[in-house]
Amino acid sequence: MGQTLTEKILDDHLVEGELEPGEEIGIEIDQVLTQDTTGTMVWLQFEALGLDEQQTELAAQYCDHQTYQFDFKNTDDHRFLRSAAGTYGAHFSRPGNGICHNVHKENFAAPGKTLLGSDSHTPTPGGLGELAIGAGGLDIAVAMGGGAYYVEMPEVVNVRLEGELQDWASAKDVILEMLRRLSVKGGVGKVFEYTGPGAKSLSVPERTTITNMGTELGATSSIFETDEKTKDYLARQGREDEYVELKADDDAEYADEVVIDLSEIEPLIAKPSMPDNVVPVDEVAGTDVDQVIVGSCTNGGYEDVLPAAKMVKGREVAKSTDLIVAPGSKQAGELLAREGWTAEMMAAGVNVSEATCGPCIGIGHVPASNSVSVRTFNRNFEGRSGIEDDSVFLASPQVAAAAALKGEIVDPRDLADELGDLEAPGVELPDQYDASKADLIAPDEAIDDELIKGPNIGEVPLKDPLQANIEGEALLKMEDNITTDHIIPATSDILKFRSNIERLSEFTLSRVDDTFAQRAKEADGGFLVAGENYGQGSSREHAAMCPMYLGIEGVLAQSFARIHKANLFNFGIVPLAIDEETYEKIEQGDDIAIVDDVAEAVESGQEEFTIRVNDDWEATATLDASERERRILTAGGKLSLTKQQNEEDSSGGATPADD
Amino acid sequence: MGQTLTEKILDDHLVEGELEPGEEIGIEIDQVLTQDTTGTMVWLQFEALGLDEQQTELAAQYCDHQTYQFDFKNTDDHRFLRSAAGTYGAHFSRPGNGICHNVHKENFAAPGKTLLGSDSHTPTPGGLGELAIGAGGLDIAVAMGGGAYYVEMPEVVNVRLEGELQDWASAKDVILEMLRRLSVKGGVGKVFEYTGPGAKSLSVPERTTITNMGTELGATSSIFETDEKTKDYLARQGREDEYVELKADDDAEYADEVVIDLSEIEPLIAKPSMPDNVVPVDEVAGTDVDQVIVGSCTNGGYEDVLPAAKMVKGREVAKSTDLIVAPGSKQAGELLAREGWTAEMMAAGVNVSEATCGPCIGIGHVPASNSVSVRTFNRNFEGRSGIEDDSVFLASPQVAAAAALKGEIVDPRDLADELGDLEAPGVELPDQYDASKADLIAPDEAIDDELIKGPNIGEVPLKDPLQANIEGEALLKMEDNITTDHIIPATSDILKFRSNIERLSEFTLSRVDDTFAQRAKEADGGFLVAGENYGQGSSREHAAMCPMYLGIEGVLAQSFARIHKANLFNFGIVPLAIDEETYEKIEQGDDIAIVDDVAEAVESGQEEFTIRVNDDWEATATLDASERERRILTAGGKLSLTKQQNEEDSSGGATPADD
Repeated sequence: MGQTLTEKILDDHLVEGELEPGEEIGIEIDQVLTQDTTGTMVWLQFEALGLDEQQTELAAQYCDHQTYQFDFKNTDDHRFLRSAAGTYGAHFSRPGNGICHNVHKENFAAPGKTLLGSDSHTPTPGGLGELAIGAGGLDIAVAMGGGAYYVEMPEVVNVRLEGELQDWASAKDVILEMLRRLSVKGGVGKVFEYTGPGAKSLSVPERTTITNMGTELGATSSIFETDEKTKDYLARQGREDEYVELKADDDAEYADEVVIDLSEIEPLIAKPSMPDNVVPVDEVAGTDVDQVIVGSCTNGGYEDVLPAAKMVKGREVAKSTDLIVAPGSKQAGELLAREGWTAEMMAAGVNVSEATCGPCIGIGHVPASNSVSVRTFNRNFEGRSGIEDDSVFLASPQVAAAAALKGEIVDPRDLADELGDLEAPGVELPDQYDASKADLIAPDEAIDDELIKGPNIGEVPLKDPLQANIEGEALLKMEDNITTDHIIPATSDILKFRSNIERLSEFTLSRVDDTFAQRAKEADGGFLVAGENYGQGSSREHAAMCPMYLGIEGVLAQSFARIHKANLFNFGIVPLAIDEETYEKIEQGDDIAIVDDVAEAVESGQEEFTIRVNDDWEATATLDASERERRILTAGGKLSLTKQQNEEDSSGGATPADD
Repeated sequence: MGQTLTEKILDDHLVEGELEPGEEIGIEIDQVLTQDTTGTMVWLQFEALGLDEQQTELAAQYCDHQTYQFDFKNTDDHRFLRSAAGTYGAHFSRPGNGICHNVHKENFAAPGKTLLGSDSHTPTPGGLGELAIGAGGLDIAVAMGGGAYYVEMPEVVNVRLEGELQDWASAKDVILEMLRRLSVKGGVGKVFEYTGPGAKSLSVPERTTITNMGTELGATSSIFETDEKTKDYLARQGREDEYVELKADDDAEYADEVVIDLSEIEPLIAKPSMPDNVVPVDEVAGTDVDQVIVGSCTNGGYEDVLPAAKMVKGREVAKSTDLIVAPGSKQAGELLAREGWTAEMMAAGVNVSEATCGPCIGIGHVPASNSVSVRTFNRNFEGRSGIEDDSVFLASPQVAAAAALKGEIVDPRDLADELGDLEAPGVELPDQYDASKADLIAPDEAIDDELIKGPNIGEVPLKDPLQANIEGEALLKMEDNITTDHIIPATSDILKFRSNIERLSEFTLSRVDDTFAQRAKEADGGFLVAGENYGQGSSREHAAMCPMYLGIEGVLAQSFARIHKANLFNFGIVPLAIDEETYEKIEQGDDIAIVDDVAEAVESGQEEFTIRVNDDWEATATLDASERERRILTAGGKLSLTKQQNEEDSSGGATPADD
């Protein structure tokens, strides 16, 4: 039987397990990336491993979320990250050089390689045939220590693209169509492999928009086969020699198939406040728009900003609307500036920002209260923009620029009809992506050889080994689809404590219940209760680390988002699945006890646990965990396990937990 | 006897008083400007006056400090300001369009006019022969109501410039030389009038750098005579018809004269943490530099960024140093982009920001802890950058760019010697400042006709009339040179409450003593005690409004900064001058009582007051106040007085306090 492209790359990198969907596999990681809000903890963890140098082919540390540096803590973080990259042999990308996914795509992403990144949009280079997966920071630290990455073997789904995109439709609309059809849970446990003649018609930047936002489907990753377009893109980036032809075998078997005819794709828009709340733009046309932002890792490339620039050139942004353009990378910014587009955008009334992804998580350009913001971003979770009751719509640069010109949401085709002289903006790739690399500091150019820690850079918290008896209060009962933004908000007032768990943990779940952190501390142990898809959203491990720091010992949920569940294991919190009836029956404040000897049961591979509630009734909860995850949980988390193994290893060298 | 230029303009606008130094005069205001951190309160006060339309020739509302909009409160403020400008007939400059002083200079500043602005660097257009004065927001509101502006007639000092600037010396070095000679107190009660052949040799942008930073001398204003260079600049801005030839009479008498030979000016730098801590660059050469920022109202123009751009073109910023360039206006940004300089800067590793003055007051690009930042700004007061123990140096764009290239402070002449091919960057003005005005919304293009207030936009606080008995604790004893940054910090976490006095007042003097606000509230009345030059720095009226809100009734200081003293009157706080002996003798916590019937004494014109300390000893304190100021104080502040007058005015129309 033939293999899918995903299987081929996994096979090439397999160090443990078998490629059976649902089975845990360990794979070798070629490249890692980290960014500034997750990276500090990654490097503190790497430091704790005691190694002299990172062990992957290529590690890259980017500064992209906190580039506005609102607080010295942000700037201290950047300095620490530069020192860590220098000390341990990673590339360092300076603040202002762009978003990790964009800069990585431009400089390092390579077909057939594996990439692990401490950011949920790490799958972006799938558009270049790299198998890229988002993970918790601790997994990155372990991978940099030479350890394998463990993940449930995903199902591989064939997304067969037919036809070609018509004028005004874009790659963003393709992934919005996927979200419309499959929902934010539709990709859980899956890799989407894009094939067919439609896939071949898309440029690499279009492909990466799709693979990037595959994350919103909950997918493990998304990937395109490589072809002449891939080769051509790499050549234009000066990296033609990294091209490898990669495709699925003709007789590959996919778990499922989705067929999309690109010629039928229309301009779409995701309404507040979920990326799968997708409708044709026309359906919300006429909505007044206060703010429009073009940028992000989804649509911040040269090829994304260019259509918007072409549309506003010679025109003026509506007086009632602010249009902010934040290029995804310095490369994009430099090319746009060199070709005159930056001047044209400014002339039209665009506020051209430095390269940053800040506004996507509420860092800068927070919308006004009771206002509408249309963004080319990938997420519109309630409150993520930095204001609790936001109304954020997600759309393509074309739809965004149209909204900015008209001051209201409008199908760009209708705007073109109205204006008469507005043409659908075609995009040619530049002959050469001829931009400077002055902001990338290679390991051999490093200027630091020791860590520089500002006063806000704290300690890595450690948990004791798992106990026999776990009981405590159901401290918080939550609904379905709780995101990591709910668990640890990423707004700038909170994000600045990312390197300081003691302070950061005070904000845990504050968006759900602002008394929670205090109650959890006082209770000294306890449970979280949630519905379906608990922990969806970004990869931030702080969403597990902070509850752990507050003493949370277990989460009872109907289901868990993939990355977050891995993070719960990594930080020693027991993730137990409960059925709907049990979920409905448990009330916040109930006393919950796990009847079993938890430490022994976890270690021995027991799957079904009995929970006893209020000493009154019992239910079954399921622990779906590999042997490896059970070892981690038993030790009190991955870092505790690794340290424990290091102590046992009399040679003194650090042995990552997953060797 | 002939007149100075200052006297001529004042004479043209005089509505009350005589042009005798030290005597209070009332002048008519032609133009007003406000910015986003002071403007919200200005418009709330204007609203309280009950008028339909602002009454000056031209009012302009700029959004320049909070352009990064890192909190919805900032964005709400901008929306409120747009609505206020629209409702009351002011120009509105959108966030991203640039710094008020730069945009005003480019679009509106005109020779012979008077300009009042709620920002301490309002004197900038003095370089164009406009007499421009910084004031508290309430004064702006009153001026917009058609009222005169009252100020002590300043002494006029002739700054005679000889010779011409040599390569690598700049206008910034001229004003740094003034600060080196005269100190931050050297201009109090003075207008500096720049004359002589050296003045004629300077371009208008060079002149405005000097007039802008005259504020750091404590000057009421600074001004240049107009000439062909002025006419030429206006022509290039498309405003030649606004040119008026203005000069002092040949037999004008000046109070004092300063002579500077421009040909002897060398690259200078202000060391931390005062703008007058000036030394030749060479004296601190070799200091490692972590961050460099080019921008601000002092050096953010096209003509300021251009030298830095020329210097870094084809080179690379030191890997250890971040170079951020924030153009002072969209016009500057657009021209730099159109001519290719933006691309060249990006290629060199510059992080090109949107147009903003945020970092100057700690909003964005806050330095790392224990780091050195070299900035082309005008102030380096301790903590103003957003981190308490900062090390901020102030210098020209040439010195800043040299530091960025070398990664350490270096005299650019030495760097030129070292590099061999680094030429002194000459600056030609563009033939036409040919940039869009898309971000300026004129009154006749306004899109709002009513105020839009977000939830953080509070009430204007009002004080009761002055009482007969004032006594209370000396709640805080401070040193010399307490700045308005000390009184109300302007960092982003605090600034967002500028429109909400109740919340903002919690931060009053927190940088001196973070228990103060709580203690003041509990004490329900009391005094502040300070040394010389209390309240220097920015014009922010919040530095008087918040102490008033907390119940402070009097300030005992050895001397007061001009704008802040006016603000104290305006908010009903009694500013009493004490001598050094009294200052030394008073301890924090002492009980202080004004022995006189304060209300009656203030009203009757009494100058000497007796204060009784701890019922133990007495001293004399002096109230230096005009009849008008006494009326204001008696009423409980200017707004209270205005409201009172309005109530007395049976016609129902609002009569500003100072008619």
